[in-house]
Amino acid sequence: MATAAPLQLHPDRLLPADPAVRDVARRLHQRVRDLPVVSPHGHVPAAWLADDTPFRDPTSLLITPDHYVNRLLHSHGVDLADLGVGRSETDGPLDEAASRHAFRLLCSHWPAYRGTPVRFWLEAQLAELFGVRVRPSAETADGIYDQVAAALADDAFRPRALYDRFRIEVLATTDDPCDDLAAHRALAEDPTWHGRVVPTFRPDKYLEVGAPGWTALADRLEEVSGVDTGTWPGFLAALQNRRDYFRAHGAVSADHSHADARTDKLTPIEALDLYDLARKGELTADEATALRRHLMWEMARMSSEDGLVMTLHPGVHRDHHAPTAGRFGHDVGCDIPRTVEFPSALKPVLDDFGTHPGFRLVLFTLDETTFSREIAPLAGFYPSVFVGAPWWFLDAPDAIRRWRSTVSETVGFAKTSGFIDDTRAFCSIPARHDMARRLDAGHLAQLVAEHRLDEDEATETIVEMTTTTPRKVFRL
Amino acid sequence: MATAAPLQLHPDRLLPADPAVRDVARRLHQRVRDLPVVSPHGHVPAAWLADDTPFRDPTSLLITPDHYVNRLLHSHGVDLADLGVGRSETDGPLDEAASRHAFRLLCSHWPAYRGTPVRFWLEAQLAELFGVRVRPSAETADGIYDQVAAALADDAFRPRALYDRFRIEVLATTDDPCDDLAAHRALAEDPTWHGRVVPTFRPDKYLEVGAPGWTALADRLEEVSGVDTGTWPGFLAALQNRRDYFRAHGAVSADHSHADARTDKLTPIEALDLYDLARKGELTADEATALRRHLMWEMARMSSEDGLVMTLHPGVHRDHHAPTAGRFGHDVGCDIPRTVEFPSALKPVLDDFGTHPGFRLVLFTLDETTFSREIAPLAGFYPSVFVGAPWWFLDAPDAIRRWRSTVSETVGFAKTSGFIDDTRAFCSIPARHDMARRLDAGHLAQLVAEHRLDEDEATETIVEMTTTTPRKVFRL
Amino acid sequence: MATAAPLQLHPDRLLPADPAVRDVARRLHQRVRDLPVVSPHGHVPAAWLADDTPFRDPTSLLITPDHYVNRLLHSHGVDLADLGVGRSETDGPLDEAASRHAFRLLCSHWPAYRGTPVRFWLEAQLAELFGVRVRPSAETADGIYDQVAAALADDAFRPRALYDRFRIEVLATTDDPCDDLAAHRALAEDPTWHGRVVPTFRPDKYLEVGAPGWTALADRLEEVSGVDTGTWPGFLAALQNRRDYFRAHGAVSADHSHADARTDKLTPIEALDLYDLARKGELTADEATALRRHLMWEMARMSSEDGLVMTLHPGVHRDHHAPTAGRFGHDVGCDIPRTVEFPSALKPVLDDFGTHPGFRLVLFTLDETTFSREIAPLAGFYPSVFVGAPWWFLDAPDAIRRWRSTVSETVGFAKTSGFIDDTRAFCSIPARHDMARRLDAGHLAQLVAEHRLDEDEATETIVEMTTTTPRKVFRL
Repeated sequence: MATAAPLQLHPDRLLPADPAVRDVARRLHQRVRDLPVVSPHGHVPAAWLADDTPFRDPTSLLITPDHYVNRLLHSHGVDLADLGVGRSETDGPLDEAASRHAFRLLCSHWPAYRGTPVRFWLEAQLAELFGVRVRPSAETADGIYDQVAAALADDAFRPRALYDRFRIEVLATTDDPCDDLAAHRALAEDPTWHGRVVPTFRPDKYLEVGAPGWTALADRLEEVSGVDTGTWPGFLAALQNRRDYFRAHGAVSADHSHADARTDKLTPIEALDLYDLARKGELTADEATALRRHLMWEMARMSSEDGLVMTLHPGVHRDHHAPTAGRFGHDVGCDIPRTVEFPSALKPVLDDFGTHPGFRLVLFTLDETTFSREIAPLAGFYPSVFVGAPWWFLDAPDAIRRWRSTVSETVGFAKTSGFIDDTRAFCSIPARHDMARRLDAGHLAQLVAEHRLDEDEATETIVEMTTTTPRKVFRL
Repeated sequence: MATAAPLQLHPDRLLPADPAVRDVARRLHQRVRDLPVVSPHGHVPAAWLADDTPFRDPTSLLITPDHYVNRLLHSHGVDLADLGVGRSETDGPLDEAASRHAFRLLCSHWPAYRGTPVRFWLEAQLAELFGVRVRPSAETADGIYDQVAAALADDAFRPRALYDRFRIEVLATTDDPCDDLAAHRALAEDPTWHGRVVPTFRPDKYLEVGAPGWTALADRLEEVSGVDTGTWPGFLAALQNRRDYFRAHGAVSADHSHADARTDKLTPIEALDLYDLARKGELTADEATALRRHLMWEMARMSSEDGLVMTLHPGVHRDHHAPTAGRFGHDVGCDIPRTVEFPSALKPVLDDFGTHPGFRLVLFTLDETTFSREIAPLAGFYPSVFVGAPWWFLDAPDAIRRWRSTVSETVGFAKTSGFIDDTRAFCSIPARHDMARRLDAGHLAQLVAEHRLDEDEATETIVEMTTTTPRKVFRL
Repeated sequence: MATAAPLQLHPDRLLPADPAVRDVARRLHQRVRDLPVVSPHGHVPAAWLADDTPFRDPTSLLITPDHYVNRLLHSHGVDLADLGVGRSETDGPLDEAASRHAFRLLCSHWPAYRGTPVRFWLEAQLAELFGVRVRPSAETADGIYDQVAAALADDAFRPRALYDRFRIEVLATTDDPCDDLAAHRALAEDPTWHGRVVPTFRPDKYLEVGAPGWTALADRLEEVSGVDTGTWPGFLAALQNRRDYFRAHGAVSADHSHADARTDKLTPIEALDLYDLARKGELTADEATALRRHLMWEMARMSSEDGLVMTLHPGVHRDHHAPTAGRFGHDVGCDIPRTVEFPSALKPVLDDFGTHPGFRLVLFTLDETTFSREIAPLAGFYPSVFVGAPWWFLDAPDAIRRWRSTVSETVGFAKTSGFIDDTRAFCSIPARHDMARRLDAGHLAQLVAEHRLDEDEATETIVEMTTTTPRKVFRL
């Protein structure tokens, strides 16, 4: 191991290369480096913090649940099963030998991550959190595994301790409308807990009225809400009931992700009739889509009334590789983006609620073409619309630079919603926010260097982007 | 006011940050900085110059007519009415108190413009034209208002004096085909006037044969042209009549902006039949679109014959927010871009006139995806086709850089049409052209620094881009 | 000529301008500058090397066959006929006077190529290969013509000598499935030949079952393969027969270019019925498209079985200007890109063969929007999918930078296929590969300068990109 390449995080990483620009960027980054993490959208389970159970092993922490990590290994021929993906509860997690093998697969494929943000996130975790000082490789894999495993046995690496160390101010989870939010409640009632974990209302599958299993979901919604979902008004009331329940447990937003962003309105009678057909399982595919789009309009209406910020993450081809989905389930790395269209899709909602003071709509996309053509122009007119941070495949340094460069000229900075980590990889949260802060510092420094902005304005702006704006946009 | 931040225009603003590249860019910019302004497409009313009436007040000059300024304020919750938008002739402009209030709204929202070109344009006007030396803010608003208002009372700030000070060589207006062009005529006949203001033929609404009110427009066309528009051949002849009238009054181009760029040809009999239905108000929406697309082919045919350069600005969702359009009218900032397609859309016109020596077609877009995929490849083959400058939402530093970087590799520089300010904000014209010159200087300097172009070639190129090419492309 | 501007290739051309970044880039470029050229896709005729006939004259070498050169001249009003385009065999090439005139047209339009890669390629050929020391212009045209013509008369400029001088390791041609590959065979049997020229199976027109002349092609396929193509199974067997013939002659890939990338499967009975209709010339346009798309699925199936790497170059509007195609034929510069969609289009193939160990699929595009949205996400999951290099209109410095910056963050470097010159301009091959190496060096140097990659990793990566990866991906 004496000859292993070192792993060192350079203090100027991701800052602009030009020395004069870098100087400004360094000052801007220093101003926000230690500000708290505001995370209004993500996928960490609240139970981790409620139970504060130690993380089990390096693989189940860093590899198995992270489809960013898995998909690239798979693209180089690694079997997802070897990474612990798709195991049932009865399977349980990988045993020690298999976990160690998975970690070796990651380390021996380290060059595959060159140029990707996954490398940045993993390096930051390994070096900053676990004190690893050697570059991952086939040779160093076991040593790194041991070092991480040893750390995880320490109380300082339990979820609550990390929550504090990460300086998290608020962490949003993503939850099923029928979830009882027991973990959120437990945290709220725990006098030893001083953080803030808020649920997010994510009703996608309840709106996909033509999908297999939807009837059972509608029944479950009735059971949990106590509102009869046998009729259209009842179904809407049950959804509102659960939104209220979420709000009572601290929720500030409702998140939506369908194949498209459409919000076409039906007449009341059309909606009622289609809903009746849905309950009978007699909807055509087109009718199911029509009712789902109308339901999105209803969600916007409810948002304008109850104040849950509406966030949209549309345009993903889920489970693109049918055999992989069949073998391993959903969210295992074979989702592929698709084109998306916002202006026509959102017109019904924006005509009705676009200037409504209670309405907030944050738009995310995997289709970069919409940044300058659609999202920025919409957010640059409608008081309710905000530009969401680059998401998923676009959550990477050059993509974030393209995004800032593309949207700022139309909407400035104050109508962007602030960074969203959107992750289930808890330990990557600080690195993800730090990446955004470094890139914002670089972007603003470039404007200063080109005399497009004074440095005092840039300093004020980066502080706003980091904490003020997300708190304001998400009513935190 | 002693503590107000200063407003200073740095001489190197918008030039590349790298010192070596900036040196080259500075030399290139200096070469063209003082060249005359050639403005072959814009929206300043000719009457301003014919009448030479002093501008009324800071708000009606800088805020009310400029939807770039308004839309961003609106996106931060400002009521457009407070900015003087949508007032009828009987309403008249805002009174002194309201005008001052509007100006305060702008200044107190100054941080909203960070990162946008609007800030660059406004700063240039405030600092260079009006001598303002403090950064706009709630505190400095009244002082700046007074300073601008005082300047406007000076004869040196009347439209003709500014025309000279701005070194405008030619300024194109945009006009209704039935306009009598009285202001243009008055200027032509005025021996004290030495500038050049040319009309532009903009027939959009006369081609939207299915729109409400079209019949009245066709009647009006008949009245003004003296040609019977009751038949299809008559309608075409009346349009040609008005094109000839415009040419006789100095017009060099015809401008077109529809939802798409299609130019599908009908057979003579189909066109004749659809036109008859149009006159009876019996066209379906699809038939109206078909006839409009065919009319675009007829416009191209006429352009190839009469030499009016055809400019296309397609792909805008007009009046996206129906309630705002209902309350304030058109062009108030709620237009949103949409995707556009050129190669198939223009094939009928290009098959027929693409190599016709009399035909010129300049393509503009709000859909950046077409730069490298469609517009540059078309202009890189067809002698008639030129790449228009970045337009509207794309008329900003980083977008202009993306545009140059994207189109030049396929068409070089000589097939780009030159900068178009496209503005109704008269006082912003020098700043807009200066922005383009600075960015062209930066782009060329980068090529020089990377040894892709010699500096003597870069110097020759920037002069051509600035004055030679637009004069040639627009036959000025 | 004493006053002519010099033509000098700067050793740092195309490297980043920032001095510190350039230092790193220079080291990286030096590491790969002299590595062999691996060219797995191109259009140089094998006969040139088999016959080793000297090139005839500067125009027929540098201008006539190169539609990159021609199209830009045409866009400035030059008649393609004056460049020797579209001459039949009986016409023969341009005579000396006409050839010299064509060369003068090129040189006098030299400024038209500023900012384009064509200039880089031509300069490299003129300066490095032919020793030209003056910038092309109307004045220097004849002198340069003479200098190039004199060189071509030298044995050192015959194809085989150049093949060696260019350090080509392997050169792929593109061939009709019915080609007897005589030139490839001659090379293989020639004991004095030590290079490697491999054919590529390009069956496009055999799959366009509804196109005029297809029946004759199917008959020809029967004749050449000796397999009855009167039935669907026979047609497939005949195609497989020719693939096997190509493989026996060294082919490593099959290349496909249709209007879209779709691979929709038909049932066996549907395919059989449509094929029968095709043989009778009774297919509708939609049916022809359906059968072509199914044939693409069959090609993928065969690729997974016989190991020919499948390369896709979809989304071109061929012969956009009908009059030009009518007068001069195909591939004369009036092809225009169109939008393309991959994830849905390829789903049938990827569901069936996406994880098949024998299957390789390399995706090229002229639609940049698919880089981050579709191609990189697909290659970042499927082991079989690789990101092809920027192609055609995108084979230029800034486009290549956009491409690297856009795809690397999702797939890293190891899932990009390596550079493809795709050219029929034999003498431009070294310049094209050198451009790619310089840009890769610049991209990696930027990552090093931003502390996103260590320099030892960058060095390893650029070597892999240049030779290791293309050898591996194309099974060379």
